[in-house]
Amino acid sequence: MSTAPTHEADVVIVGAGISGLIAARTVLAAGLTPVVLEADDRVGGRILTQDALPGLPVELGAQWIGDTHHRMFALAAELGVPTYPQYDDGETSYDLAGSGVLRQSEFHSRFAGELAELEKVFRLLDELAAEVPPEAPWLAPAAAEWDSVTAGAWYDGQGLSPVARTLLEICTVGILAVPTVEVSFLHLLFTIQTCGVTSELFAESEGGAQTTRFVGGTGEIPRRLADLVAEHLVLQAPVQLIEHGADQVTVTCRGGLVARGRRVIVTLSPTLAGRIMYDPPLPGVRDQLTQRLPNASAMKAFFIYDEPFWRADGLNGQLISDVGPARMSNDTCLPGDDHGVILLFLEGEQARTYGRLPHDERRAALTAELVRHFGDKAARPECYVDGEWADRQWTRGCYNANCGPLVWTTFGQALAAPIGAIHWAGTDTATQWSAYMEGAVEAGERAARAVIAELT
Amino acid sequence: MSTAPTHEADVVIVGAGISGLIAARTVLAAGLTPVVLEADDRVGGRILTQDALPGLPVELGAQWIGDTHHRMFALAAELGVPTYPQYDDGETSYDLAGSGVLRQSEFHSRFAGELAELEKVFRLLDELAAEVPPEAPWLAPAAAEWDSVTAGAWYDGQGLSPVARTLLEICTVGILAVPTVEVSFLHLLFTIQTCGVTSELFAESEGGAQTTRFVGGTGEIPRRLADLVAEHLVLQAPVQLIEHGADQVTVTCRGGLVARGRRVIVTLSPTLAGRIMYDPPLPGVRDQLTQRLPNASAMKAFFIYDEPFWRADGLNGQLISDVGPARMSNDTCLPGDDHGVILLFLEGEQARTYGRLPHDERRAALTAELVRHFGDKAARPECYVDGEWADRQWTRGCYNANCGPLVWTTFGQALAAPIGAIHWAGTDTATQWSAYMEGAVEAGERAARAVIAELT
Repeated sequence: MSTAPTHEADVVIVGAGISGLIAARTVLAAGLTPVVLEADDRVGGRILTQDALPGLPVELGAQWIGDTHHRMFALAAELGVPTYPQYDDGETSYDLAGSGVLRQSEFHSRFAGELAELEKVFRLLDELAAEVPPEAPWLAPAAAEWDSVTAGAWYDGQGLSPVARTLLEICTVGILAVPTVEVSFLHLLFTIQTCGVTSELFAESEGGAQTTRFVGGTGEIPRRLADLVAEHLVLQAPVQLIEHGADQVTVTCRGGLVARGRRVIVTLSPTLAGRIMYDPPLPGVRDQLTQRLPNASAMKAFFIYDEPFWRADGLNGQLISDVGPARMSNDTCLPGDDHGVILLFLEGEQARTYGRLPHDERRAALTAELVRHFGDKAARPECYVDGEWADRQWTRGCYNANCGPLVWTTFGQALAAPIGAIHWAGTDTATQWSAYMEGAVEAGERAARAVIAELT
Repeated sequence: MSTAPTHEADVVIVGAGISGLIAARTVLAAGLTPVVLEADDRVGGRILTQDALPGLPVELGAQWIGDTHHRMFALAAELGVPTYPQYDDGETSYDLAGSGVLRQSEFHSRFAGELAELEKVFRLLDELAAEVPPEAPWLAPAAAEWDSVTAGAWYDGQGLSPVARTLLEICTVGILAVPTVEVSFLHLLFTIQTCGVTSELFAESEGGAQTTRFVGGTGEIPRRLADLVAEHLVLQAPVQLIEHGADQVTVTCRGGLVARGRRVIVTLSPTLAGRIMYDPPLPGVRDQLTQRLPNASAMKAFFIYDEPFWRADGLNGQLISDVGPARMSNDTCLPGDDHGVILLFLEGEQARTYGRLPHDERRAALTAELVRHFGDKAARPECYVDGEWADRQWTRGCYNANCGPLVWTTFGQALAAPIGAIHWAGTDTATQWSAYMEGAVEAGERAARAVIAELT
């Protein structure tokens, strides 16, 4: 181990996802020297663009930005990554609460009352979320009450019809990637508030969080960011130990690599940040927080066809269903490419159940669901790719961390507060679009600015 | 680091709490060689006996055993540690739901109806818990339903009076050490079932879990166990990495110490076990489980007086209150010693709130509560000692790990199931008296037997 190199820097940054790379760039721009230690053999963290076929990349991780993701739009422009709109022509296919497969128009007319119920709940959620300070959810006037009940129990108390309750669950699990009984209602309201309003969060078109994609794949963002800090980046350097003093940190990786600096910014998800050994040890409140912020359970599966055959049938490639292994899907064809690409989301319970099945069984179950909604052509994809995140050693779950009851009100103050020379970033510590790429940028910038202010 | 020693053994055991020490002893008795790696500078884990005054030990951690803790009684006898009964003469002092301070006789007559409500709930809990297989709670007939609701929400649904609901919360938090809205109802039923019935769990006298103490302190148990395996025990060896193959493990500690063996038994609490780096990495289901089993929040505070003055007033030194920083207390005087010792429990919310206060403020708040219940003499202790567990780097919370909604049904199967050469122990993996010393013995023996069967 004595042969492993030692890196000297002003700021050691743990993790080369967007938050870490943004922090490195910001530190560098201030005339300080960063070193970024990434455990994996690649940058990007929860962004993972992978070729399904040559020249046909799919996004196993973060994929979209939305209209209010101003930091990400600016970043893409700066990095020279063009964007394009998510395809959204045609009808969604539904199968909910025993309805059988119905086109959107028919579903909407048959369940107009149920959809109105849902709208009413969304308005109420917006009203309540507006009372939650995103930088301090524990200060919401009703924080204690909202943090003592699960989102699922609160939903159950709204007197909704089965169709409305099911739709509400699907919408919410599509964001949180865990069943709503696993998170506190305050956490749900926090999530809504950091994103603006429910229409931003849940809508897929006209101002939602998933309107826009990146030419060449989302992976272009971290790749180009990494190019800007390339000489300060070390891959395959899993951090095991952070020794810290008032103005000095020593960060030791598996294999013996050591980085020394004056500050460290840890950008890992809270649960992974909690696995690092700290010397001196961190206060109990911080430690118990990281025991209580589990990463969610999400998985994406892509079917590639020779053409987007559903479009000719007037369908937009989206399904919303409570029947099969995927509750939602998307048309994720590439511009200038003839292939048809359908993305199926497995989130929460589905990610867990089907994620543990053998690959072929999972694929077969997903295929059957596609055929039910889009017809027999769906049975003959040219290729199939899926990606699970809980198995990935340096991520251990997507999309983000969620709080169960009483975590925000009891431990929330330890989420982003620096501890001596240690600062925290990563999208889970953001106050705008937490859990999104937008939040990763915000958090990386915030932590970098705080460190720069201390060091310059 | 090349100068650090390498230990060769058949079985590497991580953690020198009761579970690890029992496993080591069992392995040794089978003719195999163990090596126990303990991060701390002492054995015992969540047992911590400390002298408050010379010759007057108090228990900052595990303290009692109960009549059905057969393994612990046998172990104490074998190790030559005598036991003695918990003092329980006199009346408990109550102050609940605005009642003001009342002696037990008065409280019982004034709130007879409320106590009857509570008894009815206990009987119902016993009935439901009997349907939960302790080795596989997810197989309970109503597991999905019970795991989707918090224990707190289930309690709220029982239509109880404020006094009964408050008492129920205090009883339960006294076991789980977290508010009942943080745990799933299935987890509560599992806890009851692994202990027998609610009367075993909640009762302090006549057959409960806290009837019997150890002469010289609970610490005598791990100390004498450690003596039996002394030459196989390494202290101050925090495990950072477990490399594992079909029949080979290499365990690396901070500082470079390496232990090699054919099997490893990890006896840490699940959350701490999840912080070790494993190579190859563990499956997602195991990893996400360890993200979802936070250690609870408990703290004990001891007031030592020149005599147990409350006894002369007909009081047993117990209080049950929803007013102050401690919801319960105990007379924990030592046999053959004249001092009066009162133990105050801070559990769940109280441990968090008061545990973060400066020492003197916490002591003052606890003193005021004692004075209210036991009179002015309580204001003048000879000495005060308290102990918090979340701050302790190698424990990070007591008494045990609790599951929120859907953890048991979705991830529970990964709790104790070996993964190749890696076996799991620790009281949180036990099926009888999980979370108690009794469970630690069971789990240590179970893991050791499994390893012995594989190696001999």
